[in-house]
Amino acid sequence: MRLTKSSRFEQVGAVQIHELQRVIEFDSGSTSPSVGSDTVLPAELNKIESQMCIVILCMNEEFKTIEGVLSGIPHDCLIIFVSNSERRPVDRYQVEVRLTQSFCKDANRLALAIHQKDRDVAKAFVATGAAELVDRDGTIHNGKGEAMVIGMALAAMTNRRYVGFVDADNYIPGSVTEYCKVFAAGLHLAASTNAMVRVAWNSKPKERHGRWMFDKKGRSSRDINEWLNNTLQEHSGFGTEIIKTGNAGEHAMPLELGLKLKFAGGFAVEPYELIYLLENGNGQAVTQAENPPFVGEVHIHQIETRNPHLHDNKGEEHVQKMRFQALNMLYHSNITPEPIRNAIQDLMVSEEALAKDQEPAKGNIYPQIGSLDLLMLYDMLNSDAKSFHQITGESCACSYSSALGPIDRGSIQST
Amino acid sequence: MRLTKSSRFEQVGAVQIHELQRVIEFDSGSTSPSVGSDTVLPAELNKIESQMCIVILCMNEEFKTIEGVLSGIPHDCLIIFVSNSERRPVDRYQVEVRLTQSFCKDANRLALAIHQKDRDVAKAFVATGAAELVDRDGTIHNGKGEAMVIGMALAAMTNRRYVGFVDADNYIPGSVTEYCKVFAAGLHLAASTNAMVRVAWNSKPKERHGRWMFDKKGRSSRDINEWLNNTLQEHSGFGTEIIKTGNAGEHAMPLELGLKLKFAGGFAVEPYELIYLLENGNGQAVTQAENPPFVGEVHIHQIETRNPHLHDNKGEEHVQKMRFQALNMLYHSNITPEPIRNAIQDLMVSEEALAKDQEPAKGNIYPQIGSLDLLMLYDMLNSDAKSFHQITGESCACSYSSALGPIDRGSIQST
Repeated sequence: MRLTKSSRFEQVGAVQIHELQRVIEFDSGSTSPSVGSDTVLPAELNKIESQMCIVILCMNEEFKTIEGVLSGIPHDCLIIFVSNSERRPVDRYQVEVRLTQSFCKDANRLALAIHQKDRDVAKAFVATGAAELVDRDGTIHNGKGEAMVIGMALAAMTNRRYVGFVDADNYIPGSVTEYCKVFAAGLHLAASTNAMVRVAWNSKPKERHGRWMFDKKGRSSRDINEWLNNTLQEHSGFGTEIIKTGNAGEHAMPLELGLKLKFAGGFAVEPYELIYLLENGNGQAVTQAENPPFVGEVHIHQIETRNPHLHDNKGEEHVQKMRFQALNMLYHSNITPEPIRNAIQDLMVSEEALAKDQEPAKGNIYPQIGSLDLLMLYDMLNSDAKSFHQITGESCACSYSSALGPIDRGSIQST
Repeated sequence: MRLTKSSRFEQVGAVQIHELQRVIEFDSGSTSPSVGSDTVLPAELNKIESQMCIVILCMNEEFKTIEGVLSGIPHDCLIIFVSNSERRPVDRYQVEVRLTQSFCKDANRLALAIHQKDRDVAKAFVATGAAELVDRDGTIHNGKGEAMVIGMALAAMTNRRYVGFVDADNYIPGSVTEYCKVFAAGLHLAASTNAMVRVAWNSKPKERHGRWMFDKKGRSSRDINEWLNNTLQEHSGFGTEIIKTGNAGEHAMPLELGLKLKFAGGFAVEPYELIYLLENGNGQAVTQAENPPFVGEVHIHQIETRNPHLHDNKGEEHVQKMRFQALNMLYHSNITPEPIRNAIQDLMVSEEALAKDQEPAKGNIYPQIGSLDLLMLYDMLNSDAKSFHQITGESCACSYSSALGPIDRGSIQST
């Protein structure tokens, strides 16, 4: 893979936000020298991929769409399928597991699958230190952030070093491959284990008046990026457009960083990762966290794909929900200065999402995965949670370091 | 890349048409064993790619679309850009050449570019044995088949072993990568140098009533496949659906086969390749060609992609043109029995494309590239044709066996 070089960055406390890089070639050959660009050789990509889990977040997607997404994930990545699909009247999750099994058999590979609303999954998280994750009805809250917590916890059990996230509502399998290769290339080029690679879609195609139009950004993304950039300006005084991936669903990081992150609930999860890093990045310029969990710098790498991103249009309400959930988190963050907080409140009032003088809601924030008892979590999932599947393809134990399947119990770190 | 196995085939004379294979994984890892599927390792793909020319056929596509297509072609393939874009009022071809130069500089690679309507290109083809290609106005006929003849001739000069064709009107760069990888995988798996790999698109997405619909086939493809399959049945007696890629724009072959092929003009070119092979495949069961140009078997491999194919809707007229141009060729072929010929004529009359009792038009058929004086063609293009560009990326001579650029004059075979 060949990328444009990213020589500029902005330092915000201890967080280094790197300028957007672009993909020049998906496949940059096996020997090609790089002069003005960054190339990552196939063997270098493969080295990361074979240490990477890819978490697929799924909710009622068409089965053919899911099949396409599976086919796009590079072979050496371990698939972690987290579903919140309906189980009644048709048990969609059961079909999803079957098609993942069938794919793994055809492709000779391993996967994990789990359902977000399995009561025994909820019980296991309560017992091991994440009671906040569970609703009064005894299941894990609905929401994307919550699904990512589950995915991150499973990734942490696999003994792999990296984790990446992709959405299942993606109609272009080749773009899934590009996301994973971008993750691998970005993580290879990153100088630090405190690095995060966030993907900016090239475009979102829509048919308008019988013609294909390629919009550069969704509205929610544009909006969130602007709020985050304005927040940065309040600190430095200098206007900036450095953040291009505030809402990036497709992103990856070393587990070393992942275990220290806190996830927000729902659609706030992706922008909150940035907010959390800025809050806790040990950066005196931004906040004075008492026990900063990160030592040294955190690097945010942003990479723009070549492929367009084609998914279902989820409508106006969905976009508003995403925006407001993210703004709630920004409002309550200690990185957010007064003028921005006021502006958020004014916006929500003007859009009738908030009564005058009311405060934006406090969203859920969940504990770091690193603080959970992962061994106990694994044992409880394994013995009780019927939706938890460890899928082994035909004769594929040999491709992995562990001969036991996706997870080797003996290597799970207990707290 | 991992493909389903294709164990079944139909033998038609000396032509073996293999059952459609499907892509299971784009990236099947670097060591993965294959049990029930065919895997092609990255090094095996790379070996073919570094011997392959990819001809891009372009006519007035958006520049951003072309950039995307270029980015999708694996690095080690040599790009051959054949354009029939407008040169007035804006010289689109000049912009196309500039952006190809800019891409080759960024990506450190080589390309050839040429314009279909350059009078000096026409002169060179007339002088070297393909006068049929040229119109009374002294330029090469418009048409896709004609552009492919030019591309094939340039490919034959490069001393590479394989040639593949892709269309420039493709909005998903990752699908271009998949086509090229499919070419490489198919050619690697093919047992013969008389092999052709033809791509079947997974689907064509369209937005209908605010929803994405993924049509399995375009109408023209369905129709042409049916006519070709019916023709096969007239010979064997047995009904068949084996041909799924009658109209495949994306296809590849060894130059050894390419030099022996005859191309038809316009949109008939892709189905005519099949018709020509059936006519000349040395197969007594089909025809008794007096001097069959092919010794031994010809293998047609058909591979279905995972990516959808997203391109502009060119309208009803375009579809009709494609169908009728192909049916003209089938009508006049000696593989076509009376009942099929009558049915073609009836169809055209009923659709008012033909007066009653009139014969379908005879389309143009061009000489084999192997019969041209390629060295003279190269010299004439090189010295006279202003639209002919040999593009070298920065410092990239080292990636190729020849240090001279895309074409090494000394290695062109003279007739």
